[in-house]
Amino acid sequence: MTQSRKLRLGAIIHGVGSSMSTWRHPDILSDASINIEYYKQQALIAETGKFDLVFIADGLFINEKSIPHFLNRFEPITILSALAAVTSRIGLVGTLSTSYSEPFTVSRQFASLDHISGGRAGWNVVTSPLEGSALNFSKKDHPTHGQRYRIAEEYLEVAKGLWDSWEDDAFVRDKESGVFFDPAKLHKLNHKGENFAVQGPLNIARSRQGQPVVFQAGSSDSGRTLAAKTADAVFTGHETIEEAKSFYRDVKQRAALYGRSADELLIFPGIDPIVGRTREEAERKYKEITDLISPETALKYLGRFFDHHDFSVYELDAPFPELGDIGSNSFRSGTDKIKQKAKEQGLTLRQVALQTASPRSGFLGSAEEVADQVQRWFEEEAADGFIIHSSVPHALDDFVELVVPILQERGIYRTEYEADTLRGNLGLSKPVNRYTKARQEAEAAEQHAGRAEVEAAASAARQG
Amino acid sequence: MTQSRKLRLGAIIHGVGSSMSTWRHPDILSDASINIEYYKQQALIAETGKFDLVFIADGLFINEKSIPHFLNRFEPITILSALAAVTSRIGLVGTLSTSYSEPFTVSRQFASLDHISGGRAGWNVVTSPLEGSALNFSKKDHPTHGQRYRIAEEYLEVAKGLWDSWEDDAFVRDKESGVFFDPAKLHKLNHKGENFAVQGPLNIARSRQGQPVVFQAGSSDSGRTLAAKTADAVFTGHETIEEAKSFYRDVKQRAALYGRSADELLIFPGIDPIVGRTREEAERKYKEITDLISPETALKYLGRFFDHHDFSVYELDAPFPELGDIGSNSFRSGTDKIKQKAKEQGLTLRQVALQTASPRSGFLGSAEEVADQVQRWFEEEAADGFIIHSSVPHALDDFVELVVPILQERGIYRTEYEADTLRGNLGLSKPVNRYTKARQEAEAAEQHAGRAEVEAAASAARQG
Repeated sequence: MTQSRKLRLGAIIHGVGSSMSTWRHPDILSDASINIEYYKQQALIAETGKFDLVFIADGLFINEKSIPHFLNRFEPITILSALAAVTSRIGLVGTLSTSYSEPFTVSRQFASLDHISGGRAGWNVVTSPLEGSALNFSKKDHPTHGQRYRIAEEYLEVAKGLWDSWEDDAFVRDKESGVFFDPAKLHKLNHKGENFAVQGPLNIARSRQGQPVVFQAGSSDSGRTLAAKTADAVFTGHETIEEAKSFYRDVKQRAALYGRSADELLIFPGIDPIVGRTREEAERKYKEITDLISPETALKYLGRFFDHHDFSVYELDAPFPELGDIGSNSFRSGTDKIKQKAKEQGLTLRQVALQTASPRSGFLGSAEEVADQVQRWFEEEAADGFIIHSSVPHALDDFVELVVPILQERGIYRTEYEADTLRGNLGLSKPVNRYTKARQEAEAAEQHAGRAEVEAAASAARQG
Repeated sequence: MTQSRKLRLGAIIHGVGSSMSTWRHPDILSDASINIEYYKQQALIAETGKFDLVFIADGLFINEKSIPHFLNRFEPITILSALAAVTSRIGLVGTLSTSYSEPFTVSRQFASLDHISGGRAGWNVVTSPLEGSALNFSKKDHPTHGQRYRIAEEYLEVAKGLWDSWEDDAFVRDKESGVFFDPAKLHKLNHKGENFAVQGPLNIARSRQGQPVVFQAGSSDSGRTLAAKTADAVFTGHETIEEAKSFYRDVKQRAALYGRSADELLIFPGIDPIVGRTREEAERKYKEITDLISPETALKYLGRFFDHHDFSVYELDAPFPELGDIGSNSFRSGTDKIKQKAKEQGLTLRQVALQTASPRSGFLGSAEEVADQVQRWFEEEAADGFIIHSSVPHALDDFVELVVPILQERGIYRTEYEADTLRGNLGLSKPVNRYTKARQEAEAAEQHAGRAEVEAAASAARQG
């Protein structure tokens, strides 16, 4: 842990929230998921709190059982581009799946967002957990978990290659001579792999931060490896600090295997802070939300993790049922955790469903208490930063107003943005263009060879 | 021509322009194509001029011969979303190809833009003229002209179906009862066709204008038919008013064959107005631009239309060469026109190249003269409106400042927006959701049947 290690914060803007029932609360805007004013306001609150980034999640398949937010929400690329125009310093990170899209289009859209925002774009790479996605994309089958991660790895290789199509100084724009660009600094990728064949070049330059920041969101074994190899940051989720620390250690160690240092890969658990002016106020806020959830609703929500499995056929107060392989090709790390916990704690279906539909946050309490938790997770290396979810009304406002000043006072969180790019604020260096790097290395080798020759000649002269 | 027929205007924001050399002019921002401030400013100028829409063109393949603007520019969906956040009334129309994308993603991105902008989105459907596009999208071959249009037709069927996934009043959001949406108003598309299999539903509601406005940009026979069947507007280009009138008549007649009325399909030729305070000033502006073009540059530009054919191998001052089929699978209507004109007027390669690289606009002159041309094309039914290109510095500013007031004074152009959606301003009605329509028709038929029964009973009673 270096002296300069600073806590990072992101805010997930998630409309009416990730639960089935939060939208029913009187203080929740029931059309928040599709309300541009709400999204603008949340982004500006996060920017007031000097957050590193806002985060937009995504999914590619819904049915009548999906949670309200998923049914009718903004698409990430479009909403982030709109937010770019009304913010100035905060990063803009969005989820996009590598299983149902084209690397040329996606790397181009993120590059364009990166230019529009002056270097504040980030891409959360996911592989689409939901089986049903295939039905919306003219595919017979949803690729298996393993296939999806092989596709994702090659996809990222292509995207990063396309982002380097133009060297940083390729665009000369010399009106006098009529030279618009230097052809030696334009590069075709000519990628030919198992899943993709992409020639390039991309029709957009590198941005001020070089390449968009790459997040990775899968926490399975394949997800961790992909992150360790290729990502700048990981978006994860853990119930306990022990679990989070073990994940943190594991991913940083994997990164080291690929020759990367610990501060090149940042770990962001998502947390659901519920902050009150007192602990009682926070408890009351939590209760207001859980009171809105019926057992039927909770079962529907649970089903989502298990490939929309119908849990209403089981006895509510009997032990959690044996499910075999159901859902293992979707949210694998999530379903494993649910099944394990049910077994270990001997929970009934009702208990599992209610806890899944509205998990009791460990980050619940007075502002001081929540700040303590945040500081502890950060200092004990369970997290480099957090993505703040809003599971109760005004959760982000409360966090910015009440918790952020405490974290600033304690010296672990910024009081002003350090940079005007997302990479700059995250303390990540700007990646050097691969072709520029190759040229520089070739030149260094040549100089070195030249020096060796001169030295050899001098030595020969001395000996002669 | 009805009393209420009003001229429509759009502005294509096109960075450093669609020529090889305009960027060299001292008054042109040489990074305009990737300058967010420039795009914002142009959109706001167009909104000041009460334009119906701004328009962003696109392409999916570049090489070292491409025109400067194409090498490094914003991607349409992203830049339009950003412009949505800083404008309030103007429509936002962008090009996106149906040959290299997924209907679920594209209909979703345009629907999301439509919500972000409060009902101002439009999609210019193209099929990608450039052969090289296949190389960036893991495809062995670029589909033929005929295949591309068959794909486009099915694609639009899918997109329009997905846009109707939710009926207008599907989202109930009743906090008391806990009903978020009415399941009877959620519809799966279940499309299974030659090229696509898409189940749906789309994960976003209909917008205030029902569906994004559909533009179509191909002027070939297949393009005209597709537009007549499915589009709300056509973006075209003509050198003479006769040509434009014949196109206008042809497309409106084709639309009638599909049971559509003339005002359901608007025709927008693109024009390059060059406006001066006097005619001499306009002529000087044109000369400043053509003086910047070398014959080499002009040949390169010409090559773009013919699948990047290398014209430098021919004698510059010999008659325009025989080219056979070269380029006929790309910009077919464009190449046919160039070849025909060269033959008819006996032009040399140099003449064809220079005229193609910088066509002399028919809309060149004093503000009064340009307004006369605009009015004539509009009143003689060569156009329902125009898309204004900027081929000289400050072309849009000049048009808005000098020509728009004349058109307003003559009563053919609005002085205030009539509506706050793009459809509303274009005078297009909001399409009724297909499922709502079917239900209404079924109900009407039932009522009719009921009435018939009552009448039959009454008649029987009278006769009895």
